[in-house]
Amino acid sequence: MRTIEWDETKRILKVIDQRLLPEKYEYIHLDNYKAIAESIHCMAVRGAPVIGVTAAYGMVLASIHSKAKDAAQFVGEMQFAAQEINAARPTAVNLPWALKRMLAAIANQQRSIAEMKAALLAEAHAMAEEDIRVNKAIAKHGAPLIADGDTIIHHCNTGALATVDWGTALGVIRYAFEEGKKVHVLVDETRPRLQGARLTAWELKQMGIPFEIISDNMAGYFLSTGQAQKVFFGADRVAANGDVANKIGSYMLALAAADNHVPVYSVFPTSTVDLNLGDGKQIPIEERDQDEVLDISLKGQRVVPEGATARNPSFDVTPARLITAYVTDLGVVEQPFSTRYPELLKMKKD
Amino acid sequence: MRTIEWDETKRILKVIDQRLLPEKYEYIHLDNYKAIAESIHCMAVRGAPVIGVTAAYGMVLASIHSKAKDAAQFVGEMQFAAQEINAARPTAVNLPWALKRMLAAIANQQRSIAEMKAALLAEAHAMAEEDIRVNKAIAKHGAPLIADGDTIIHHCNTGALATVDWGTALGVIRYAFEEGKKVHVLVDETRPRLQGARLTAWELKQMGIPFEIISDNMAGYFLSTGQAQKVFFGADRVAANGDVANKIGSYMLALAAADNHVPVYSVFPTSTVDLNLGDGKQIPIEERDQDEVLDISLKGQRVVPEGATARNPSFDVTPARLITAYVTDLGVVEQPFSTRYPELLKMKKD
Repeated sequence: MRTIEWDETKRILKVIDQRLLPEKYEYIHLDNYKAIAESIHCMAVRGAPVIGVTAAYGMVLASIHSKAKDAAQFVGEMQFAAQEINAARPTAVNLPWALKRMLAAIANQQRSIAEMKAALLAEAHAMAEEDIRVNKAIAKHGAPLIADGDTIIHHCNTGALATVDWGTALGVIRYAFEEGKKVHVLVDETRPRLQGARLTAWELKQMGIPFEIISDNMAGYFLSTGQAQKVFFGADRVAANGDVANKIGSYMLALAAADNHVPVYSVFPTSTVDLNLGDGKQIPIEERDQDEVLDISLKGQRVVPEGATARNPSFDVTPARLITAYVTDLGVVEQPFSTRYPELLKMKKD
Repeated sequence: MRTIEWDETKRILKVIDQRLLPEKYEYIHLDNYKAIAESIHCMAVRGAPVIGVTAAYGMVLASIHSKAKDAAQFVGEMQFAAQEINAARPTAVNLPWALKRMLAAIANQQRSIAEMKAALLAEAHAMAEEDIRVNKAIAKHGAPLIADGDTIIHHCNTGALATVDWGTALGVIRYAFEEGKKVHVLVDETRPRLQGARLTAWELKQMGIPFEIISDNMAGYFLSTGQAQKVFFGADRVAANGDVANKIGSYMLALAAADNHVPVYSVFPTSTVDLNLGDGKQIPIEERDQDEVLDISLKGQRVVPEGATARNPSFDVTPARLITAYVTDLGVVEQPFSTRYPELLKMKKD
């Protein structure tokens, strides 16, 4: 079963409610685009790649419920829905990337509303299928970076749950494991929302890959004592110079790896690259509700003194200088990203 | 009220049970040395300086309950008790330091058992009073390092609770605040045991010092965006070359500060320096029960998949190169610690 799945009979999107894992494996049914936006905002659906595809189906739902009387009105409604869905979360560029692609599918064309609706559904399906293909390509490119016997520190969740299926950074680890390499994963719990302790641990357990959970602040200890040979994480937005915005904590993890000459790999599909932004400083960083920090178990159980407040930036920027290489669906990109990635992109397009 | 207090009438040591804060402010009564060792092991009492003084009273309790018939037997019993108390936790050198000092109080002397018992009690009292004096000296030396308007990132708990009274790193911040400087503290929650979110937040609230709690992995974000001007933490053992073993996460915090040219101060009494160890690699690092990581709220509430395991190193080593200066009761020690600290030590002894 996939992380998200379109039900053509009911015309709804079924998504795993990732807030409930690992305790409950439940799907929620989304039947309108506002519910799609909310599912992304509240992080029932999370992970940059799957956010993009979920948003695409949000556009499909907006189109289904449209009562527009002509093509122009329909396109206007779709643009409005795209804006609303886009506002759900600011950092991952996959969200605007997917919405732009959906709008492009109905742009500059003299077609009927019914044809445009069909085009949107086809494009969303194409993006979902493409996501899986792209992830498997990433995994194949990245797997040779993992040596037999490696212990790998992994941050946040980048597995099948973060995508339509298969995963990005965790997909690379899975590929290496399925090739027969012995791997061990030190799972950053990933405060505050514990995507590592809850989701990555759940996926690794299902795949039979050995792992141990660590607090994020322990990574430096394992790196400096020679107990970890690789660091892998995903990306939510990559700037033109190779700076990577990713889940909060990635920057400190990359610093600790660099200080101990341990390679750091950021793994993502091409859709995560935003060549419009020169560097990471320009990437908008979401700050989420402070309750995610204060309520440590995410279950209404506070351990802090009454009245205490918190900050909650959800992402940070890892400068390109700390990243050994980028693993993409086009191949592994060495530094400097700013020239090698455009070259690779051009080569693949030619 | 102090963190620990000797009750001469009942001949017990009263200690705040720090596991219950901030929800409950309760004292536990320790009437034998094994209970003292257990209170340190289970972290009802924690913080390198107060661990030392608590251990000293453990020796007092051992002496009170001794049924030794001669001085040699008594000293033997005290040595045995010291070994048992010393085994409670391995990293903070204040523990063996205090125990050695207590044994020295009864060494090489031809005295009666009663006289030796009195000497032990007097020495423990002296250490408790000294702890407070030393902490205030540290605070006075360190306060000038804080500028009006500074936002300070603080790791773990180094306040009154970590000492008999007043505190080390947090004591410096308190001193600056009481001098009238405007300060703001970003409190590292300090996974896994949340000494920051629970204890430091509780102390700051009581003192009226403004603060916000952050996950440990967020420090890099605030440092790289210019939102923090200083980093302060304590120390559990400082090697001769200036490497500092401190609560897990200190190393990654110091790396992030150094990467952004933000000064890092490690604050500790002279008793925390272990000149017998050449560098930090020789400092024994405690690994505690994995449940501290797996049970996120420390209240029996797991969020991880069934069967998941964890690692739990309780300290890491921050290399001297990442520390701007050391704040001690003798004064502020700039780099290189390996030469400046012995010079300062000699100067004060002369």
